Amino acid sequence: MKRILLLGAGLSASTLIKYLLDHADYGNWQLRVVDQSLDLVKHKLDGHPRGVALSFNALDQKERWSELEQADLVISMLPARFHVEIAKDCLELKKHLITPSYVSAEMNALHEDARKAGLIFMNEIGVDPGLDHMSAMRIIDSIKNQGGEISGFKSYCGGLVAPESDTNPWNYKFTWNPRNVVLAAQGGMAGYIDRHQYKYIPYTQVFTRLDKISVEGYGDFEGYANRDSLSYRHIYGLEDIPTMYRGTLRKPGFCKSWNIFVQLGLTDDHLVLQDSENLTPRTFVNAFLPYDETMPVEEKWMNACRPLGITDISKFEWLGLFDNSAKLGLKHATAAQILEKILLDKWILEPHDKDMLVMVHQFTYMLNGEKRFIESSMVNLGDDQEHTAMSKTVGYPVGICAKLILNNRISERGVLLPTKPEIYNPILDELEDLGIVFQELEKVV
Amino acid sequence: MKRILLLGAGLSASTLIKYLLDHADYGNWQLRVVDQSLDLVKHKLDGHPRGVALSFNALDQKERWSELEQADLVISMLPARFHVEIAKDCLELKKHLITPSYVSAEMNALHEDARKAGLIFMNEIGVDPGLDHMSAMRIIDSIKNQGGEISGFKSYCGGLVAPESDTNPWNYKFTWNPRNVVLAAQGGMAGYIDRHQYKYIPYTQVFTRLDKISVEGYGDFEGYANRDSLSYRHIYGLEDIPTMYRGTLRKPGFCKSWNIFVQLGLTDDHLVLQDSENLTPRTFVNAFLPYDETMPVEEKWMNACRPLGITDISKFEWLGLFDNSAKLGLKHATAAQILEKILLDKWILEPHDKDMLVMVHQFTYMLNGEKRFIESSMVNLGDDQEHTAMSKTVGYPVGICAKLILNNRISERGVLLPTKPEIYNPILDELEDLGIVFQELEKVV
Repeated sequence: MKRILLLGAGLSASTLIKYLLDHADYGNWQLRVVDQSLDLVKHKLDGHPRGVALSFNALDQKERWSELEQADLVISMLPARFHVEIAKDCLELKKHLITPSYVSAEMNALHEDARKAGLIFMNEIGVDPGLDHMSAMRIIDSIKNQGGEISGFKSYCGGLVAPESDTNPWNYKFTWNPRNVVLAAQGGMAGYIDRHQYKYIPYTQVFTRLDKISVEGYGDFEGYANRDSLSYRHIYGLEDIPTMYRGTLRKPGFCKSWNIFVQLGLTDDHLVLQDSENLTPRTFVNAFLPYDETMPVEEKWMNACRPLGITDISKFEWLGLFDNSAKLGLKHATAAQILEKILLDKWILEPHDKDMLVMVHQFTYMLNGEKRFIESSMVNLGDDQEHTAMSKTVGYPVGICAKLILNNRISERGVLLPTKPEIYNPILDELEDLGIVFQELEKVV
Repeated sequence: MKRILLLGAGLSASTLIKYLLDHADYGNWQLRVVDQSLDLVKHKLDGHPRGVALSFNALDQKERWSELEQADLVISMLPARFHVEIAKDCLELKKHLITPSYVSAEMNALHEDARKAGLIFMNEIGVDPGLDHMSAMRIIDSIKNQGGEISGFKSYCGGLVAPESDTNPWNYKFTWNPRNVVLAAQGGMAGYIDRHQYKYIPYTQVFTRLDKISVEGYGDFEGYANRDSLSYRHIYGLEDIPTMYRGTLRKPGFCKSWNIFVQLGLTDDHLVLQDSENLTPRTFVNAFLPYDETMPVEEKWMNACRPLGITDISKFEWLGLFDNSAKLGLKHATAAQILEKILLDKWILEPHDKDMLVMVHQFTYMLNGEKRFIESSMVNLGDDQEHTAMSKTVGYPVGICAKLILNNRISERGVLLPTKPEIYNPILDELEDLGIVFQELEKVV
């Protein structure tokens, strides 16, 4: 009996654990799950005979060593910064490894050693990154195999709320780490290429330069530019492509309203605000507006909104942004932390709510002298609070990849991404059976 | 005969060297000046019998040690990050030290040791910081000594071009490090306090929230917020002051035009641009504007300017921003580096040009039941390219402080700022003789 060691049983691991247990008899493996909280692991394993709940500090090499030693495959769902040290242990102990996270430079540096040791260190095999690579590469390889030449690739992904749960004026609820949503697009300019022209968008312009995307049955979305689109030219083997753009999806109108937070500095995560524990939503907002002896905060806010094309402040009133009745009570907090606290209460995903994952790829290419267009789109809705769309679209690809590795179906070795047919084909095929389906629309333009 | 060791003979040291040589016979000291360029030092010492030109690497402890050992006073005009290691040597060798730069946390940590060793480590004694502290503290202490209570302090400083040399549509030329001008206001939100309300301004709003300042004989200026106003409450002993604001001065209209560079990301210093060596001003600008098949760059630029209230693009045309005739040729450059290169040619201070240093303090306070207002302003014009206003307003305070230390006129010991009467009074008095004069306007409001 083989052993899969899963490090971390948090939010994103629910569907992964279920998948690996469902296939444990057929694959003849045991799933050993480690988390700081033994109760959490036991809950997720639900008494399955092939599941073993463990509780130790996976970040401590001594504590994890004997478990790693006995494993056939290690899956790290720990925070991304810990993957490299796990990978180094795996190299020493000669174990395959899967992580859903972006490959780091340090991880990439292990490629030759891992390859020589005959090991698979698979990365970026969740949803974004992960499913985006696989679904895009299947189309890219197919166009190339037909002799086509790709001139444009735009790709969008968004974690949103399902239509039936889309009940607030922002058309948005937190379906993933709220902090990352507040800090979205920060940390550097967005760079992409548009018809051979390099284009750069600073943080404070990102939420104003929007693409419009429509998905049949789900209506319209808007897309804002991700920070890095350019490095994907290399990853996808499209080094000379004239247009390459990656974006994040929101429902229409979200970005225009969000932009006022960005413009006024309410998303800043560097400066610790004075007396932050005594701020109310109203005094917090007022700290980012000019002093005025007589003008109410609402009017100053409206004045700041107007140049951005925002014509009423009801969305902000709905957030309780002008409320002065209770202190937020966050000590030594940045603006981003305070804004997150205000939003958390309002954008919470209720127990009956379902999330939604939307991914859209758009390709333009020349084939046999014709200019052609393919749009490939996938929408997945959460089943419940545990098996969310996010948990499924991350967990299934990781789980299927684990099965492929244990069944010796992957021949490539080293630090890998899921960009090769031997990896993406079986995963995408099985995902279709699991309800994660890309719809293709193809036409001559 | 005493020895002053001056480390660094760059731009800002010319007037300092002249002052120290002019007073060398009277004070009976020798001035030993170190720089990497012996020619530069010799030129600045101009054969003065009390001057000794030295050339070694002052950043190398071994090379500087014997010179430090023989000195009675060390003045470091090196880049600010090197002051601390010089200070540590001075501690070991028991030498007084002067630097014009902002005191760092590491420097402050030496306070007790320096104090116990009976040493003066004087910092922030140039113009800004320096002259601002001294001129403000004289007024603050005077108001307090009369029993007044200060309710507001706003302070502005700007390095500009003299009216006679103010010959371009931007009313601006580089009178100091151009890179710092391009990066101005970056690196964190501006924070200040306005009538008991903390206020924060993010980088992309700084150049839109302007104060209007007038200086008799010199017309109007606009002031934008410096990053840190709040820490000056402690430095000036005004911990509970309701209003504290520090700003930077420009001529009217500058900030509105500069703001378009900020908004579009042309001042970004993080992302290295693709193929930067092949950019012309026009293709550089176009990379920050949306793609458009037919619209010329000028029209796209105008469209981006309009929401900022800029109604024509002649200032930008004057900069050659839309020129496509020559590549800028900067490899692996950021937007800020490329913008600096474009501006350098146009905003250069010509040999016959003179610079101008403007400083304005505004105090409101209660005295004997009356609400009163004092405005104290200083304008200094450069003599020539060597003895610029910047060089004089930095060099004279440092030079006078050196004289005070060697004449044992300063009793305080440790890591100091020039905020005490025994320091600021003799320096401000002598500066008046040297033509650096604050004009006070006082009134009941």
